[in-house]
Amino acid sequence: LQSSTMTYDNVIQPGDNPDLTKERKSASFNLWKMQCFVHEGEEVVRRRKEILEFVQKTREFDDPIPAEFLSREEIVDRGARKAKAMTDNADAIDGSDFFGEGLYYQSLVIGRELHSMSLHYGMFLPTIQGQTDDDQMDEWMGPTIGRAFLGTYAQTELGHGSNLTKLETTATYDPKTEEFVLHTPTLTATKWWPGGLGKSANVAVVMAQLFTNGVNKGPHPFFVPLRDPDTHMPLKGVTLGDIGPKFGINSNDNGFLIFDHYRIPRRNMFMRFSKVLPDGTYVAPHHAKLGFGTMVFVRSIMIKDQATQLGAAAVIAIRYSAVRRQGEINEGAGEVQVIDYRTQQFRLLPQLARAFAFLFAAYEIKTMYLMVTEQIGDGNMDVLAEMHAVSSGLKSVVSWETAQGIEQLRLACGGHGYSRASAFPDIYTYAVGGCTYEGENIVMLLQVARFLMKCAKEVRIGNPKLANIGEYIARNDSGKARIRSWKQVTDEDIIHDFEAVARRMIFASYDRLKSCENAMTKKEAWNKCSIDLCKTARMHVKLYLVKVFLRRVSTCEDAACKKVMHTLATLYAFDLISGASGYFMKGGFMSEQQSELVQSDLYEILEVLRPESVALADSWDMSDLELRSVLGRRDGNVYPALLEWAKKSQLNRTEVLPTFEKYLGPMMKEGRSHL
Amino acid sequence: LQSSTMTYDNVIQPGDNPDLTKERKSASFNLWKMQCFVHEGEEVVRRRKEILEFVQKTREFDDPIPAEFLSREEIVDRGARKAKAMTDNADAIDGSDFFGEGLYYQSLVIGRELHSMSLHYGMFLPTIQGQTDDDQMDEWMGPTIGRAFLGTYAQTELGHGSNLTKLETTATYDPKTEEFVLHTPTLTATKWWPGGLGKSANVAVVMAQLFTNGVNKGPHPFFVPLRDPDTHMPLKGVTLGDIGPKFGINSNDNGFLIFDHYRIPRRNMFMRFSKVLPDGTYVAPHHAKLGFGTMVFVRSIMIKDQATQLGAAAVIAIRYSAVRRQGEINEGAGEVQVIDYRTQQFRLLPQLARAFAFLFAAYEIKTMYLMVTEQIGDGNMDVLAEMHAVSSGLKSVVSWETAQGIEQLRLACGGHGYSRASAFPDIYTYAVGGCTYEGENIVMLLQVARFLMKCAKEVRIGNPKLANIGEYIARNDSGKARIRSWKQVTDEDIIHDFEAVARRMIFASYDRLKSCENAMTKKEAWNKCSIDLCKTARMHVKLYLVKVFLRRVSTCEDAACKKVMHTLATLYAFDLISGASGYFMKGGFMSEQQSELVQSDLYEILEVLRPESVALADSWDMSDLELRSVLGRRDGNVYPALLEWAKKSQLNRTEVLPTFEKYLGPMMKEGRSHL
Repeated sequence: LQSSTMTYDNVIQPGDNPDLTKERKSASFNLWKMQCFVHEGEEVVRRRKEILEFVQKTREFDDPIPAEFLSREEIVDRGARKAKAMTDNADAIDGSDFFGEGLYYQSLVIGRELHSMSLHYGMFLPTIQGQTDDDQMDEWMGPTIGRAFLGTYAQTELGHGSNLTKLETTATYDPKTEEFVLHTPTLTATKWWPGGLGKSANVAVVMAQLFTNGVNKGPHPFFVPLRDPDTHMPLKGVTLGDIGPKFGINSNDNGFLIFDHYRIPRRNMFMRFSKVLPDGTYVAPHHAKLGFGTMVFVRSIMIKDQATQLGAAAVIAIRYSAVRRQGEINEGAGEVQVIDYRTQQFRLLPQLARAFAFLFAAYEIKTMYLMVTEQIGDGNMDVLAEMHAVSSGLKSVVSWETAQGIEQLRLACGGHGYSRASAFPDIYTYAVGGCTYEGENIVMLLQVARFLMKCAKEVRIGNPKLANIGEYIARNDSGKARIRSWKQVTDEDIIHDFEAVARRMIFASYDRLKSCENAMTKKEAWNKCSIDLCKTARMHVKLYLVKVFLRRVSTCEDAACKKVMHTLATLYAFDLISGASGYFMKGGFMSEQQSELVQSDLYEILEVLRPESVALADSWDMSDLELRSVLGRRDGNVYPALLEWAKKSQLNRTEVLPTFEKYLGPMMKEGRSHL
Repeated sequence: LQSSTMTYDNVIQPGDNPDLTKERKSASFNLWKMQCFVHEGEEVVRRRKEILEFVQKTREFDDPIPAEFLSREEIVDRGARKAKAMTDNADAIDGSDFFGEGLYYQSLVIGRELHSMSLHYGMFLPTIQGQTDDDQMDEWMGPTIGRAFLGTYAQTELGHGSNLTKLETTATYDPKTEEFVLHTPTLTATKWWPGGLGKSANVAVVMAQLFTNGVNKGPHPFFVPLRDPDTHMPLKGVTLGDIGPKFGINSNDNGFLIFDHYRIPRRNMFMRFSKVLPDGTYVAPHHAKLGFGTMVFVRSIMIKDQATQLGAAAVIAIRYSAVRRQGEINEGAGEVQVIDYRTQQFRLLPQLARAFAFLFAAYEIKTMYLMVTEQIGDGNMDVLAEMHAVSSGLKSVVSWETAQGIEQLRLACGGHGYSRASAFPDIYTYAVGGCTYEGENIVMLLQVARFLMKCAKEVRIGNPKLANIGEYIARNDSGKARIRSWKQVTDEDIIHDFEAVARRMIFASYDRLKSCENAMTKKEAWNKCSIDLCKTARMHVKLYLVKVFLRRVSTCEDAACKKVMHTLATLYAFDLISGASGYFMKGGFMSEQQSELVQSDLYEILEVLRPESVALADSWDMSDLELRSVLGRRDGNVYPALLEWAKKSQLNRTEVLPTFEKYLGPMMKEGRSHL
């Protein structure tokens, strides 16, 4: 076991900005213990340090020039180089633990970017694992793992994302040659977005409408070679390319793909569940809805990733706010650290709390997933459906609040937050993609709402069979809000109040929905009520986040860590209540007095947490390599580093740009001649 | 006078996406009349069309490759080329009307970017106009207008932005040589951020602490040559360069600047207000606070610019939502336009309303500014201070809500919104800069709060002398909320309710501040109460926005236009109330019933406005050239245009990227060899 001193030795070093050192020494808790709590145990933190050391010492991972100074072509090159180097050195980590070690290793090697092999591992490989029959598994698994080809997953089309049933790409079975003919019948059927499809991948899982014997059997996955293994040229009948620059994630060559009557063998259809026999006979799958599990697992990773992005933004903004001095609070007393401003604390600390809430929720979902998948053997599909609902909701709430939070934190850093030196622009554009991919956020919320309406119906008809997550919906409690001063309020009080508000919103939505259904079709009623349904779903998810945060804190073994973390969890809950005070005050559930108390307590908590802020940021254990931020540097020596960074600008390679010779010089010369 | 048909002929053309044509025909109002209302008259709309035609036909303005495919060096080159071409052709517009014609012309020629000459016209020229004495004016004005040199405005330093009094750059007068010695005494004194400073400008207004006879006289502006007019090389004693890539606005070479005992003549100090005589005697200015007026005017331009960015985002998202079909509302009825989803309407229409509210507020501020500057001659400085407060608050609220709104609209467009083809990423990164420059948003809100607390104090001591904007604060009204069904509620009811809520917040903040002042210094109390003070300031600004929107609509002469616009203004107000329901319900001011009515009415209004949406978007009169968005195209033929756009990607210049030869090819070859 490492002593706390050792860890502090790493975090506090000679030459550090003294303001930051002062902050680090003012914390009431032991940093090592807090890091272990945050990262689920000593072993994890120790492994993080090992992986960090490995990456730091491996010369293949060096970046001669930081990514922000590279052109699109250059960052794509960098991405491919690093993806190869990263997988060459895959032994450095436990490959079975992508949630933990894999995600961390990747963030250290590559940063906040996808790369040419992201989809190969993230989507192509799981499809090979989950959708092949035994022979296909034998044939494709080896080369997939051995990087003998590079795969991607081609589902979304120009014209269809959320509504998969209407994908237009066709795979028509030709029994004469025992082949499928892949075709892009319309412009909108063009495959669009798959990562690595544009220039890197040479095979793909392609989702296409399966036609056999003239009948459409719906979308099915196919294994499709795209490029010649030796020359990498597109195969005949295949047109593909990059879809152009995006908000972020530009090291990835997201691609488009058009088929012109392109033939693949019958056995290139993934045949674990459905089959087409040589004569064209279609064999349907036994179960309609498989693959829920993988989606839940992918979402747990995504939620952890989002939490980490928000956490990184909070770490950067908190450290910078401790070293930035601007303005005086008491005249003549000298300029203060900007973190001394109450408004600044309000910009920073609720976001820090939120990042922890999201991280803990990711742990929870992952743990639940592992538990539940064991139970599925016993046929417990209901729990899985419920977990799918909560993970959908989390994906939506977490990605949206992460995006908003990152921008709040960036803006709290003033002008320097706008520079890419801060890393905020890259964090934001990377993270905000999560609002859209893996299920559009509003669509996700409506899935949660559907689950909640089912629960409400079961309660109303007097036959509730709700598992853990929805159980509170059936509880009968018409009491008032129990929220009290933050020093007296219990976890149960807080949860009680959130449950009561969520429950009331659920039944209000349910009643409104039912009453609408009298006047129109069920689908129309659903559409008419959908805004309320989204709001209701959001409250259900927030309740879940508050519960998980409080529960996780209650397991903390170190008293000092527990105390600070509990204050942070309370800040999180109070901030949510304050932001939704209209819902809490409805029907007199929460009184005026309580509402005002929540508000003034919030400010008091900010004051209490102020001296813990930097150490709480440090508890994420984010190295400079992981942060990649000049503003968020461990040593706080921000200003010289900003100047050093700026000197690398592409425009500073010469004192005088060609623009002078071409435009500005002649213009000014002419201007002078008229004087 | 153009007939409405003529305008429709332009907006609806053969070959357009039929969904968009259907939408355009479903509007209840005349488009031309609405455009004239939105843009303050027929003459303006006609001039817009003339300027557009001029830009379209002028070959110098052509872009061979859209900006999003260019590298940093290339967009800087493009920016300089176009800035020169734009100013070469300045006769095309009324140069005295930057708020109207200038801003529009620039957006057509250059797009959402600053350029190497932005600060020359935006900050340098106004300083020459406002800060020179007669001789200096004679010397510098001609070459400034004649582009004989290129200027920028260097104020912000690495270590100081908001707190100008602590700028560190020094200008020390040397009476022996009658020169000022400019010096950068510390690293943090490095000038940082000025637009065009890095590589383009060869002179600058530099703000520096003036020392004469050993005494610091505070920050003063100086006229400083930076580069050799012929070679463009930095002058001896001057080090400067580009500060590196940013979130957006990368065509601008924001720069850094370091002085090493750099000498300029005494007369290079701007001497309209303060002077230093040859012997070093300092002559103080007559008035301490001049220049308020210019700031108000600059803000009116900024608010219009922000409104236009949010408007553009709304136009793009609304048009795309009308052509995008995804999912079914009633099964088997075919996929619907996504604008048919209530959730989508809720994402789009409040933002559209907001954009109009901001545009009208910009008009209001500009008009007030022109009125008030006439009155200043009569010594009416109070009104100017008040207007300064409201423009500060507007700057803050408008820029923040614009940024949030743009992202909401982008996310409403799903995956395609993430592509730079949509233009959203460029709109966002450009607009969100406005939260920080020209006064950090929280600092701005606290300025408003200071004004409001002064008003509250005057009311409390029984001696209110409040001008227009703060007048409601003194009113005595303890009644209940008057909000009613949107079909019955009057403008007066709505304004009454907002005023009551804002007033209560102002006095609650005031009382809390006073009570804090008993226990600590005034400055500490201010800091402690600052979060509430910001919230109060925001409500005051929202009240102002609602008032202006309703007032502007009441002046609309066309009944059909007025009706739709009034519905939109009501949507704006109801959406604000719904988002702040906790404040409105406080103390029982707004009843539960009223609160629920606001909510359900909101949804009803969405339904009413649904068929007007596309025509309302068209009423901004934004050409494809101005929008620069594949998703927002007038003709709605989005999908083929996306594919065309993508083909221009830098990565599509060759079928096979070098990454194959360098990394991926050998990797896969090795992988195959192991099979």
